Amino acid sequence: MTTHFADRLLEAIATKGSPVCVGLDPVYERLPEKIRKKFAGDFAGQAEAVKTFCLTLLELVAPYVPAVKPQSAYFEMYGWLGVAAYEECVAKAHDLGLVVIGDVKRNDIGSTAAAYAQGHLNNGPGSPDSVTVNGYLGSDGIKPFLSQATPAGKGLFVLVRTSNPSARELQDLVTQGGGRKVYEHVADLVASLGAGSVGASGYSNVGAVVGATYPDEARALRELMPQQIFLVPGYGAQGGTAADAAASFKPDGTGAIVNASRSVIFAYNEKQYAGMDWKKAIKSAAKDFAKDIATTVRSSDK
Amino acid sequence: MTTHFADRLLEAIATKGSPVCVGLDPVYERLPEKIRKKFAGDFAGQAEAVKTFCLTLLELVAPYVPAVKPQSAYFEMYGWLGVAAYEECVAKAHDLGLVVIGDVKRNDIGSTAAAYAQGHLNNGPGSPDSVTVNGYLGSDGIKPFLSQATPAGKGLFVLVRTSNPSARELQDLVTQGGGRKVYEHVADLVASLGAGSVGASGYSNVGAVVGATYPDEARALRELMPQQIFLVPGYGAQGGTAADAAASFKPDGTGAIVNASRSVIFAYNEKQYAGMDWKKAIKSAAKDFAKDIATTVRSSDK
Repeated sequence: MTTHFADRLLEAIATKGSPVCVGLDPVYERLPEKIRKKFAGDFAGQAEAVKTFCLTLLELVAPYVPAVKPQSAYFEMYGWLGVAAYEECVAKAHDLGLVVIGDVKRNDIGSTAAAYAQGHLNNGPGSPDSVTVNGYLGSDGIKPFLSQATPAGKGLFVLVRTSNPSARELQDLVTQGGGRKVYEHVADLVASLGAGSVGASGYSNVGAVVGATYPDEARALRELMPQQIFLVPGYGAQGGTAADAAASFKPDGTGAIVNASRSVIFAYNEKQYAGMDWKKAIKSAAKDFAKDIATTVRSSDK
Repeated sequence: MTTHFADRLLEAIATKGSPVCVGLDPVYERLPEKIRKKFAGDFAGQAEAVKTFCLTLLELVAPYVPAVKPQSAYFEMYGWLGVAAYEECVAKAHDLGLVVIGDVKRNDIGSTAAAYAQGHLNNGPGSPDSVTVNGYLGSDGIKPFLSQATPAGKGLFVLVRTSNPSARELQDLVTQGGGRKVYEHVADLVASLGAGSVGASGYSNVGAVVGATYPDEARALRELMPQQIFLVPGYGAQGGTAADAAASFKPDGTGAIVNASRSVIFAYNEKQYAGMDWKKAIKSAAKDFAKDIATTVRSSDK
């Protein structure tokens, strides 16, 4: 676990053949009927159902994808019971050889940020290999994560440009003296903070979250952050296509990892996979997603 | 629990006679020796020590302060064990009649933000009365919290201007077309989102985090957000004085709640309280803090 995080992620991508990540956003109401029926519908039963679903899901997608991104919120909604389930899922993902990106969007300063870093990067097998971080507090809120990540072979992804419609309200404000947008300043900060932790691959342990729903901006950000791996949400259910996501990659096909959550994990509810058993639907969707991204990124390679 | 959150907080402040809040930032290494000796120094022992300390701390400060602000990071560092301890502390604070502000700085969008709101506002007695929220994602990231908070008699505090030195890096960027800073745009957003949930007190369920270390900015923000209760961190250990904190109040002495964490909860390490038993030191510090703020706010009342 002491290998450089970015190098390790790139290696995992090369091994599996596609720069993709499956997001674990387990909403109880959307779980397969078989699983919902197996557990009581109360609070503890729902938490158990969510855990059971995720543990199986990890086995289903592991052959096709290098990484998974559990979304902490869907576990935290069940309090400590859910957090225990989250840790069990992270540990299982590690057993399966998957790189884990904990989508926690934590943010704070100094010793408080260090406490978050400890809890989410350095608590043994239940801790992810990397976490998402919200950078609104500036470098004081990013450095404590980085200083714990690198020695542990771990990394972080700082929110630069998110994939949601209202991202524009603050992230796109145009600043004086050059007409740059707020998210471009965040990009500069990320590039600068990440410069000290670049591995043999040329990529830093400090990556960036850049939504697939804004491909033009992703292309511009690619220039501003040459050493950052982009974590690209927004594919599939949020409307981003593989071609949109391709904007986050370098011409050599490296530099980004594309996430899909609902379109893969709830594939059994999609027309495309109708009639399939839920496990088969998820496997097929994971395989199709990995292929779609790999093919598109390869064909846009010049 | 269905009373309006802001009204309820103001009532609690009036009852206790001071607009203050004690932050629970329990760092194991700084706990009283007696407590550290009582438990094994391993991971589980530390978590138990932190919980024991906080449960006693709540009893010590409850007579003097209307609210407490547990900092989630110091609990999350112990994984699910810590989260269980956090929930137990929140429930205990409720038993003692304290208003609880969960300092979680959560942020995400749509159904994910709703899952956070569920977990942190609507999971029974272990859920705080309000949470801190990071608004970098725009209104998509704030509305889901608000729509769960108000019906449950709960609230939120959105980070506007934080108290740390690097807050300036992004929050103070000056925007085109008027020369306003990013945090002023956030203030506008907060004021606008909060307008629909104003109680009899004239204050909204959507409050704002405004650091005490920047009093001039707090005064300007007071104008921009007349209906927001300001949660003011940075007093004491971070260098803010009562006079600095007073800038966040309206002339009638309402509109803000000042937080102190380390200067109260680790008071037994301060010169001022040297020689006192740790419990007595904390009680004295809580009393002194409440008096310092109450006196200063009253004297700046015009």
